[in-house]
Amino acid sequence: MASSSKAILEKLMKHAIERNGFDVFLKNISVLSVEPGKVNFGMEVQKEHTNQGSTMHGGLTSSLVDSLTTLALMTTENPTPGVSVNLAVSYFKAARIGDKLTIEAEVLKQGKTLAFTEAKILNQKGDIIATGHHVKHIGS
Amino acid sequence: MASSSKAILEKLMKHAIERNGFDVFLKNISVLSVEPGKVNFGMEVQKEHTNQGSTMHGGLTSSLVDSLTTLALMTTENPTPGVSVNLAVSYFKAARIGDKLTIEAEVLKQGKTLAFTEAKILNQKGDIIATGHHVKHIGS
Amino acid sequence: MASSSKAILEKLMKHAIERNGFDVFLKNISVLSVEPGKVNFGMEVQKEHTNQGSTMHGGLTSSLVDSLTTLALMTTENPTPGVSVNLAVSYFKAARIGDKLTIEAEVLKQGKTLAFTEAKILNQKGDIIATGHHVKHIGS
Amino acid sequence: MASSSKAILEKLMKHAIERNGFDVFLKNISVLSVEPGKVNFGMEVQKEHTNQGSTMHGGLTSSLVDSLTTLALMTTENPTPGVSVNLAVSYFKAARIGDKLTIEAEVLKQGKTLAFTEAKILNQKGDIIATGHHVKHIGS
Repeated sequence: MASSSKAILEKLMKHAIERNGFDVFLKNISVLSVEPGKVNFGMEVQKEHTNQGSTMHGGLTSSLVDSLTTLALMTTENPTPGVSVNLAVSYFKAARIGDKLTIEAEVLKQGKTLAFTEAKILNQKGDIIATGHHVKHIGS
Repeated sequence: MASSSKAILEKLMKHAIERNGFDVFLKNISVLSVEPGKVNFGMEVQKEHTNQGSTMHGGLTSSLVDSLTTLALMTTENPTPGVSVNLAVSYFKAARIGDKLTIEAEVLKQGKTLAFTEAKILNQKGDIIATGHHVKHIGS
Repeated sequence: MASSSKAILEKLMKHAIERNGFDVFLKNISVLSVEPGKVNFGMEVQKEHTNQGSTMHGGLTSSLVDSLTTLALMTTENPTPGVSVNLAVSYFKAARIGDKLTIEAEVLKQGKTLAFTEAKILNQKGDIIATGHHVKHIGS
Repeated sequence: MASSSKAILEKLMKHAIERNGFDVFLKNISVLSVEPGKVNFGMEVQKEHTNQGSTMHGGLTSSLVDSLTTLALMTTENPTPGVSVNLAVSYFKAARIGDKLTIEAEVLKQGKTLAFTEAKILNQKGDIIATGHHVKHIGS
């Protein structure tokens, strides 16, 4: 079950990458584990992820929150990508080239019209790099 | 004065694009007008900017807020890129391929250690696509 | 028209205050001007509004954003209080006892299921004290 | 140790309540448990906490996040109340009169100039009522 979810998620990501839209950054991301509504992803920071200070770009951080919490929504009993209402990111610490990040994406609540999700980005030492909260509209 | 600020900003953007980091998305963005702490940018939505629903990716929206408010901070009397503390985006309406967007980036307050900025993204009809708020740490 | 909206708003506020719920803090607030979806309120900071540092309590600031943007939603063509989805406040500067604040509350978008509102709090010198953004669910 | 922290926290709260500022709402709140940087509080929703829909007022929810994460900052090794930079609350579910809430307030990071905190509000069934994130400036 969990392994089939992982396969489904990887297929979704492959499809998103091949589309050549903004989701191409998913090519650097692997699925570490999947439970319904809770996915851990892995990513190594590379130069293409950075800003001019050579740390992970804040826009990528928020893009990770956006896309990976949406993927977590695809692993619930009622999978749905939804539409973004609000995204908020707090930046705790810089991530540098070579850092191996874990991104924990979780659906905190999936209601009839709204879903509340969160992501926590950690480095290899377990330090929090960023937290993000993403509210999506999932109603018809 | 304003035109020289525009030239400086375009040079900063060119440099950021050539670096081949995450800021490459700036290649699609033009500077429309510059006042100290207040810059209007233009962008036409293209396929590479979109998610699987073929609307502008929420991660790009937040990346625009991040990078363009930072560029606005480079046009104040004490130019500084700062480091992100918090970024929040509200998504009002989808932007589609071909939409011509204006992104108004403004520094609302630049204190000793913190700067508060905002961005408003509008389409060609003047509808708000998204608003963003970006707090940066600029202290030493 | 506008003056009748003001009367309606004052009646709503009186009713909220007399209910003896959490909205009692509205007793210190006056309606300065009303346009559909846009209301300016006035408030003088008093001791009961402050934290232990004798500046306006951040919880009151966010309560002002919550209640006053909701009142602004009552002045649109389709008045509705809605239910809060997300509230975000940025604190620019402290307000002190005796400061005369203006709170500009505005509905930026009222859709079918969601409304996006903002509030800006200014002191008597025109300095921004805080900005707030409040997303409400207004669908059935 | 932990019990003495609890006593210190209760003394701080008593002092805040007696001051007759905005923190009077703390009179309804008890300290359930204390670890350094992590405090659980309890509160029963009463009429004075509600809006006109007779559910807990969103302004109180955000005030709880503001004040209780600040109290959590007083239980770290370097206690400090700090000054609010940014507060964001997501509202998952209504709380009603008689609901017994637990508010988990935690310091996620305490740096030199900034502290990142969060609060989670749960009802007696364990449903999330709201989550909040509060960034404070704690530098000199």
